[in-house]
Amino acid sequence: MPPVVFPLDSTKKFTDQRIVGHNRWHGEIPAQVHVSPGDVFRVDCREWFDGAIHNDDSAEDVLHAPLPGVHVLSGPIAVEGAKPGDLLIVDILDVGPIPQEDSGPLAGQGWGYTGVFATQNGGGFLTEWFPDAYKVIWDFRGGTATSRHIPGVSYTGIVHPGLMGTAPSAALLAKWNAREQALIDTDPGRVPPLALPPLADSAILGTLTGADFDRVAAEAARTAPPRENGGNQDIKNFTKGTRVFYPVFVDGANLSMGDLHFSQGDGEITFCGAIEMGGFLDLHVDLIKGGMDTYGVSENAIFLPGNTDPQYSEWLAFSGTSVTLDGQQHYLDSHLSYQRACLHAIDYLTKFGYSRIQAYMILGSAPIEGRLSGVVDIPNSCSTVYLPTAIFDVDVRPSASGPEQVAPGPSVPTASF
Amino acid sequence: MPPVVFPLDSTKKFTDQRIVGHNRWHGEIPAQVHVSPGDVFRVDCREWFDGAIHNDDSAEDVLHAPLPGVHVLSGPIAVEGAKPGDLLIVDILDVGPIPQEDSGPLAGQGWGYTGVFATQNGGGFLTEWFPDAYKVIWDFRGGTATSRHIPGVSYTGIVHPGLMGTAPSAALLAKWNAREQALIDTDPGRVPPLALPPLADSAILGTLTGADFDRVAAEAARTAPPRENGGNQDIKNFTKGTRVFYPVFVDGANLSMGDLHFSQGDGEITFCGAIEMGGFLDLHVDLIKGGMDTYGVSENAIFLPGNTDPQYSEWLAFSGTSVTLDGQQHYLDSHLSYQRACLHAIDYLTKFGYSRIQAYMILGSAPIEGRLSGVVDIPNSCSTVYLPTAIFDVDVRPSASGPEQVAPGPSVPTASF
Amino acid sequence: MPPVVFPLDSTKKFTDQRIVGHNRWHGEIPAQVHVSPGDVFRVDCREWFDGAIHNDDSAEDVLHAPLPGVHVLSGPIAVEGAKPGDLLIVDILDVGPIPQEDSGPLAGQGWGYTGVFATQNGGGFLTEWFPDAYKVIWDFRGGTATSRHIPGVSYTGIVHPGLMGTAPSAALLAKWNAREQALIDTDPGRVPPLALPPLADSAILGTLTGADFDRVAAEAARTAPPRENGGNQDIKNFTKGTRVFYPVFVDGANLSMGDLHFSQGDGEITFCGAIEMGGFLDLHVDLIKGGMDTYGVSENAIFLPGNTDPQYSEWLAFSGTSVTLDGQQHYLDSHLSYQRACLHAIDYLTKFGYSRIQAYMILGSAPIEGRLSGVVDIPNSCSTVYLPTAIFDVDVRPSASGPEQVAPGPSVPTASF
Amino acid sequence: MPPVVFPLDSTKKFTDQRIVGHNRWHGEIPAQVHVSPGDVFRVDCREWFDGAIHNDDSAEDVLHAPLPGVHVLSGPIAVEGAKPGDLLIVDILDVGPIPQEDSGPLAGQGWGYTGVFATQNGGGFLTEWFPDAYKVIWDFRGGTATSRHIPGVSYTGIVHPGLMGTAPSAALLAKWNAREQALIDTDPGRVPPLALPPLADSAILGTLTGADFDRVAAEAARTAPPRENGGNQDIKNFTKGTRVFYPVFVDGANLSMGDLHFSQGDGEITFCGAIEMGGFLDLHVDLIKGGMDTYGVSENAIFLPGNTDPQYSEWLAFSGTSVTLDGQQHYLDSHLSYQRACLHAIDYLTKFGYSRIQAYMILGSAPIEGRLSGVVDIPNSCSTVYLPTAIFDVDVRPSASGPEQVAPGPSVPTASF
Repeated sequence: MPPVVFPLDSTKKFTDQRIVGHNRWHGEIPAQVHVSPGDVFRVDCREWFDGAIHNDDSAEDVLHAPLPGVHVLSGPIAVEGAKPGDLLIVDILDVGPIPQEDSGPLAGQGWGYTGVFATQNGGGFLTEWFPDAYKVIWDFRGGTATSRHIPGVSYTGIVHPGLMGTAPSAALLAKWNAREQALIDTDPGRVPPLALPPLADSAILGTLTGADFDRVAAEAARTAPPRENGGNQDIKNFTKGTRVFYPVFVDGANLSMGDLHFSQGDGEITFCGAIEMGGFLDLHVDLIKGGMDTYGVSENAIFLPGNTDPQYSEWLAFSGTSVTLDGQQHYLDSHLSYQRACLHAIDYLTKFGYSRIQAYMILGSAPIEGRLSGVVDIPNSCSTVYLPTAIFDVDVRPSASGPEQVAPGPSVPTASF
Repeated sequence: MPPVVFPLDSTKKFTDQRIVGHNRWHGEIPAQVHVSPGDVFRVDCREWFDGAIHNDDSAEDVLHAPLPGVHVLSGPIAVEGAKPGDLLIVDILDVGPIPQEDSGPLAGQGWGYTGVFATQNGGGFLTEWFPDAYKVIWDFRGGTATSRHIPGVSYTGIVHPGLMGTAPSAALLAKWNAREQALIDTDPGRVPPLALPPLADSAILGTLTGADFDRVAAEAARTAPPRENGGNQDIKNFTKGTRVFYPVFVDGANLSMGDLHFSQGDGEITFCGAIEMGGFLDLHVDLIKGGMDTYGVSENAIFLPGNTDPQYSEWLAFSGTSVTLDGQQHYLDSHLSYQRACLHAIDYLTKFGYSRIQAYMILGSAPIEGRLSGVVDIPNSCSTVYLPTAIFDVDVRPSASGPEQVAPGPSVPTASF
Repeated sequence: MPPVVFPLDSTKKFTDQRIVGHNRWHGEIPAQVHVSPGDVFRVDCREWFDGAIHNDDSAEDVLHAPLPGVHVLSGPIAVEGAKPGDLLIVDILDVGPIPQEDSGPLAGQGWGYTGVFATQNGGGFLTEWFPDAYKVIWDFRGGTATSRHIPGVSYTGIVHPGLMGTAPSAALLAKWNAREQALIDTDPGRVPPLALPPLADSAILGTLTGADFDRVAAEAARTAPPRENGGNQDIKNFTKGTRVFYPVFVDGANLSMGDLHFSQGDGEITFCGAIEMGGFLDLHVDLIKGGMDTYGVSENAIFLPGNTDPQYSEWLAFSGTSVTLDGQQHYLDSHLSYQRACLHAIDYLTKFGYSRIQAYMILGSAPIEGRLSGVVDIPNSCSTVYLPTAIFDVDVRPSASGPEQVAPGPSVPTASF
Repeated sequence: MPPVVFPLDSTKKFTDQRIVGHNRWHGEIPAQVHVSPGDVFRVDCREWFDGAIHNDDSAEDVLHAPLPGVHVLSGPIAVEGAKPGDLLIVDILDVGPIPQEDSGPLAGQGWGYTGVFATQNGGGFLTEWFPDAYKVIWDFRGGTATSRHIPGVSYTGIVHPGLMGTAPSAALLAKWNAREQALIDTDPGRVPPLALPPLADSAILGTLTGADFDRVAAEAARTAPPRENGGNQDIKNFTKGTRVFYPVFVDGANLSMGDLHFSQGDGEITFCGAIEMGGFLDLHVDLIKGGMDTYGVSENAIFLPGNTDPQYSEWLAFSGTSVTLDGQQHYLDSHLSYQRACLHAIDYLTKFGYSRIQAYMILGSAPIEGRLSGVVDIPNSCSTVYLPTAIFDVDVRPSASGPEQVAPGPSVPTASF
């Protein structure tokens, strides 16, 4: 095991750990861990809700999920010699659930969860059709996940961190806050909101205290969206063996990470979320000095995915176009066309005995592929979603003999306001 | 060779062929070909511009591309016994360029093209940054394509039909026309337009003549967008071995197809288009009686992709978020985030010696993957684009030694108004 | 279509063609086709028995298969400038059954065959257990093969030439003849024989006539075995997109080829053979001058396989060790251990309703993988054979519920002396 | 972490552990661990030489490797209810090096080794050309291995147990001993020996003592070869996610395992061995009652490999035939043809600057594929070996520009008698 530079004790809350991380982006959150280019080290990561979601059959915890407190991140980690303009190389040498802990109350201890927020508390990709809170629990057995709430499916984990990134400079942070506030201002009362402004309440800022804490908490960006620094990209392909290149905006780069997923479909459409868990990341870091300019990478991550993702060779695919369910034509809206493709997949799976929410949960957590197939054929974009047929116990291919039925299982825990 | 039910002579214009196809969608265009469930047959397909684009080093033809005349489609093909409510199974047994013709003036005779329309004539996914007309020519050598206009790349073809679909019912067609006109009406003068209304000029409607022709031409839908009937989906994964399921809206299903591509990246971002060519499709058809209801597939195609796509195991990926280049924050706009990911890839490739338009052309024609990675993390969606590193002669991975340079080649033909 | 430098007319016998090929290896068979480095061209290939095997339900033709006449090869093709010591690059741009001919009496016209020779006429890998002659017919539908003689299986073709190679020098030929005769001399009466000596009877030697013919026919090597020049390697991975490097032993290299297979399992264990067919090869050739020494390749082919082989992700594997069925221990005999692994697979498939000969035929023709898993663990080698589960209509994985049964089909045609 | 039913302390010798395993096969070695069908549990495994091979730059330890003491196995593990005639399902849920120990003197603590025995002490697949003892050390960094003794290569681990199997019945054991002794008797003085007879010296037999120990030690089979019970199959595809089915010969099945490999090429041609290490296995077991007869699996393992093996898409392949280096023709000897293919690969790699022993070590430890390509083309079999090109830092494909040279590194430690 590489040296654990950011250790976590599963029995303690995030703020009671020996090193306390953070849940906001700000360049002035002090780095408490220092590594050098070439170093290999381990970082423990807490599940994103710090244990608020339980391994039970109720969705009350998801209904009241404390969103102001997310994501609890491990870091910042300063890399010796990193300067603005450099590219920070991060190799994901390994990633997994909490090692040596296969049972316990914390997601990552042998289990994980997929949730859908109620519309009033964040919603999800299909919140219009799934307005309540829902939760399913997944059990890990080695590399695969199964759920007592969804019969007849099992996935090989496509394990990855949902969130990793470098700290923003003051200028970059100011830009974020300005543009996101401008968006919020277009519809301030919207439910769910258009964006999340800085929020001092529930802010965790490492070692900061007093006036520094107050100032930074008032400015620091929320961690929900991905941005120029990487952040919450939720790219399911950040698997073991991946090499990521992050732009560096502050001295030391100040790398942070969290939001580990045991598995996820493209889009993380359920929002709360993939199969969520705590765990660990083994990393190697290096620098390409001046790399941002050399390679024209001024923002967002570029990466070489790992080569041990689960292999499936047969897929059942659904397509959608940018027309709303009630028939309104939108112009080249790939978000909408992906929604429609996902809704088609849900409709289809119900014919095999799944409930609609079970199907939605499968799409959010299984290693489905979501592709922007056509983006120019005015006025309709075409998006496609690919389900690996091997994850299902029954044969889900269409045939003249009609759909086989999955064994009925318990229903998905649901809760509503 | 299966019986050729829809033959084309490469030396004749589309309208001079023994069987004349169509370039509009309408349920009353008469089927001239009749097949039965279980049949295997060949359909020749004309390149979508009917030969208007030439194998030369000028982009004048793309600048003046006759868009009202596209797509020249082979069909309609009536399937014995098909009734509204059925699912039509179409197996793509084989697909390729024009057989036995490796040279000649028609795309598909050993060569193909990728173009970008000028903004005034349709534009493309990145028309804001590439406002003129551009063209590159690709030479096919067996399964691979190379271009005299782009140095140092070669692709294994991911050959597929860009367009296939069943005829709309009268009610469905009326719905299309209504919703698309409503969109156009929101900004009727927009360049490029929001959508394309019916257009009698240049309409080709098979055997229809006289008053029937006039009436149908005035109502028939343009073929640019994908819709409920499949249509111009431009899904690069409709490769050899694929089984597609189409909803049936009229008696006989009236299947039509065209717009063959030798290769394409997800999104077909160049619009004009992938690597365009004429060629052939060998198909097998069958029916699932009442399948639309049995499987909940009331619109759009579902499909099982073939298993012989080109295999690449190393990818260089770029991510983008839904913030415009000038810094405006959009709300979960995956179209925009894919644009930004593509622009990042273009910026990057220029560091290796490619011109920006060369890089754009690569993204439009190489078998790149475009994924909706994150669609819920308000306010930013995250899209990613994956380039197979093996298509490049030089090593395009970032490293401390900096980018290797491709041998300079001739520039990309360009033309502007 | 590239220029056809070696055309064949499906309606004429091999010796009645415009250009007559050969069925023996000898450096003095004159090249009738001349190409240059960089050229792209097509070569038609006759099925290896020149039409002696028919699309019917009798195995009499296999029982009396005229082995002295094989393999009918297309060539020799001289490559301008090739000299002994060079490496000849051969790119397999495309390969397939006879184009445009989907029905007819010749294998390759929409169908192919797999046979097993009777022990007295060559036998096969498992001739001890399958002593008679057997035949199954395969129908091609686009990229897949099915058989009326074997229920419930279909394969995506892994199309390749079984045989390709350069002409031997006089010295190399002499070496072959000496060493093979020495082997024969150890057991001259063995049935089947240990090796096949030169045989003037049935020799076809291109344009050679008279005394030259007689002399060369008496010396020329049979084409059954692979040797230093490549030859009948039966490597199933010589698929479309493959680049092969052959040593050059005579001026012009004198490349020849044939024995096309629609599909084959590792080992071609049925011997007569894979799924045999006639068809075409589109090739590109080039030279690495002096490459044999530069790269240390003095014999046998090296190659980079193509990247469009059929993809399967689930395999059922069987292992075997080098102990005979009657319990005799052999020392690290991978041939034997592969035999045992194959016999295990056959035993297994019979539990699903297949006859033993059907199972054997599947192993010979499906894209199975055969691996030398352990070759050092004295005294047992361990070989493994991998069957893609997706080629079967029924689920062939072991389970507590026991084997599902395939629908019974007609029996495999058999004939015996 | 599942419950550790067979724990090992890295600081103690195999015989000083709390539970002592065994290094011989015998049905009367008492099971010390008992599990039930459906159980999930962890088994720690010692590297096969119990720590005799060190992380240094000398091959003296390999020269004097204590072969009588191998393999130190974890087990036997009795499965409740298992009876002769059943099939034991073993799911490899996870497998890896020693968890949480990334440095230390024991292979598996962040490092592993590949060795070649001297001819007098076991030899290897190519002992005729590599008669001495050699050793290279590999460092693990997450999922990849690199060596200070071999420049310019790195592999993604294809981690697997080299050895796993059930205990033999008395009758089966007697059969082994008889047939192997018969082989030995054909050449009793051979160096290396043809097989290894029972050997009381160095035998470790779990809890057995006294007369029982002596009797069993005199009868128990050595663990080197794979046999009907599975055993030392060295199948590189027993990776995470694999489901293996073992025949059961004694009550409780008495499963044992060990010889973990971080990576291995097909054949494990270096013998001492793959990349050797200690580590852990997380297993799930179940039974198919009477499965041996139901599925016709009376011996050897059958298995469904996992779906997360490292993916490579470009391979450089070498072929060989069954002719010895000095020109003697053998009859369909796939062992020999694989030897020749491997020797060709070694010759080739020396042109890039590798020493012959470095090339041999690469073939033994990298995830190369070894295939029985042709096994019927008398008198030559054809074997092929496939090297993934991506494991090399330099481009190892042949080209007109000649081989690029790897940076010279230190030589491989060597020792000889």
